[in-house]
Amino acid sequence: MKELGDVIVVAPDSPQSGMGHAITVGDTLRLEETSIFEGVRAFECSGTPADCVKMARHFVLKDEREPDVIVSGINHGSNTSISVLYSGTMSAAIEGAIEGTPAIGFSLCDYGSDPDFSHTREYIKKIVKQVLEKGLPKGVALNVNFPRKKNETIKGIRICRQANAKWVEEFDQRFDPNRRRYFWMTGNFVNFDKGEDNDEWAIANNFISVVPCQFDLTAHHAIPLLNDDWDI
Amino acid sequence: MKELGDVIVVAPDSPQSGMGHAITVGDTLRLEETSIFEGVRAFECSGTPADCVKMARHFVLKDEREPDVIVSGINHGSNTSISVLYSGTMSAAIEGAIEGTPAIGFSLCDYGSDPDFSHTREYIKKIVKQVLEKGLPKGVALNVNFPRKKNETIKGIRICRQANAKWVEEFDQRFDPNRRRYFWMTGNFVNFDKGEDNDEWAIANNFISVVPCQFDLTAHHAIPLLNDDWDI
Repeated sequence: MKELGDVIVVAPDSPQSGMGHAITVGDTLRLEETSIFEGVRAFECSGTPADCVKMARHFVLKDEREPDVIVSGINHGSNTSISVLYSGTMSAAIEGAIEGTPAIGFSLCDYGSDPDFSHTREYIKKIVKQVLEKGLPKGVALNVNFPRKKNETIKGIRICRQANAKWVEEFDQRFDPNRRRYFWMTGNFVNFDKGEDNDEWAIANNFISVVPCQFDLTAHHAIPLLNDDWDI
Repeated sequence: MKELGDVIVVAPDSPQSGMGHAITVGDTLRLEETSIFEGVRAFECSGTPADCVKMARHFVLKDEREPDVIVSGINHGSNTSISVLYSGTMSAAIEGAIEGTPAIGFSLCDYGSDPDFSHTREYIKKIVKQVLEKGLPKGVALNVNFPRKKNETIKGIRICRQANAKWVEEFDQRFDPNRRRYFWMTGNFVNFDKGEDNDEWAIANNFISVVPCQFDLTAHHAIPLLNDDWDI
């Protein structure tokens, strides 16, 4: 991002996997300036990814300027399909869209311990430049996922819909040294989607997936159905 | 709910305000049976509201039966408009929809310390009965909000869209006894919506709001726009 403009970082100070769109309610927040990124004004925040965007916008930048773009990630792990709901990375981008700022969340579909991010660099700049030049429709943030680095080069960028897939959980039951029961949640990803216009298909076929996401959760098609069906 | 069928409760063991669609990743979960509700099989779970639905569905009920309906709440506080994204109550309902089960989140728009829930009782039964009889469209959960109890009786139920509104945050900066800075996040709710078909209007006019919500976040209208606009 430094090659594209002035950057301000506000990042969580601890891992935020599965944090979804959580915010800090009923507890305090910390924000400390850090010199972790050379030549970049950066802060670490005790809150969630969504908290970080709120603090960046309404505390750090309050009296300065509006950001041109909010970029979140790059996340180490996939945020395709239903994972967008559980994703801290994407909640920060969606919070950006709520603020009226063009916003993008980037993720790499690689769960290896030492993933190669090198192939994402050129495309991240390309996508951010497009957004800076052309903006985004109101209320829309982008969910961008990269396939893991392969020998074959990436086939290109696909604008997609969110695939119809879900996690089927299993609970691994164990006992602690005091013989009290506890669980690890594990899950299998199940893809029900046979289409070729969705993010799972794109990633499986070595494309970069770009899903425009919105924060209006209304199932508009269901409003007339309920009005017809219900005796209210 | 006891008057409508067999009930199984899986509830978080601590407050979950602002928890959004967070799930427990990289940490353990506890689940303990409790006798807090007379004649109801009930569990307290250390996880988030979404975790509770996952545990209810894939551990507690695993080999028994599919639930006919998942009900979340009633929450003490509003979950209208943009608050649906930050709501633990609604994440449990949306998790139900992901599981393919008709699901409803109930909330009372009253922030008083001792709110009167009595007017919600009759309507909650009415709404759950409608859902049990008629089902819900696939992938849809209901976000139901009640106005606070007034002298005037409730005008009825409105099927609505999510209002276009947001929270504008302020950060109340303080110093702890060690002179380290911390913050309380506060916010003002700002409603940009002039329509009469949304949940904010319904609540302000003493209607119960019912917003059908979906977990497909795709901004479908933006796909052709991006395909036309971008040089990719």
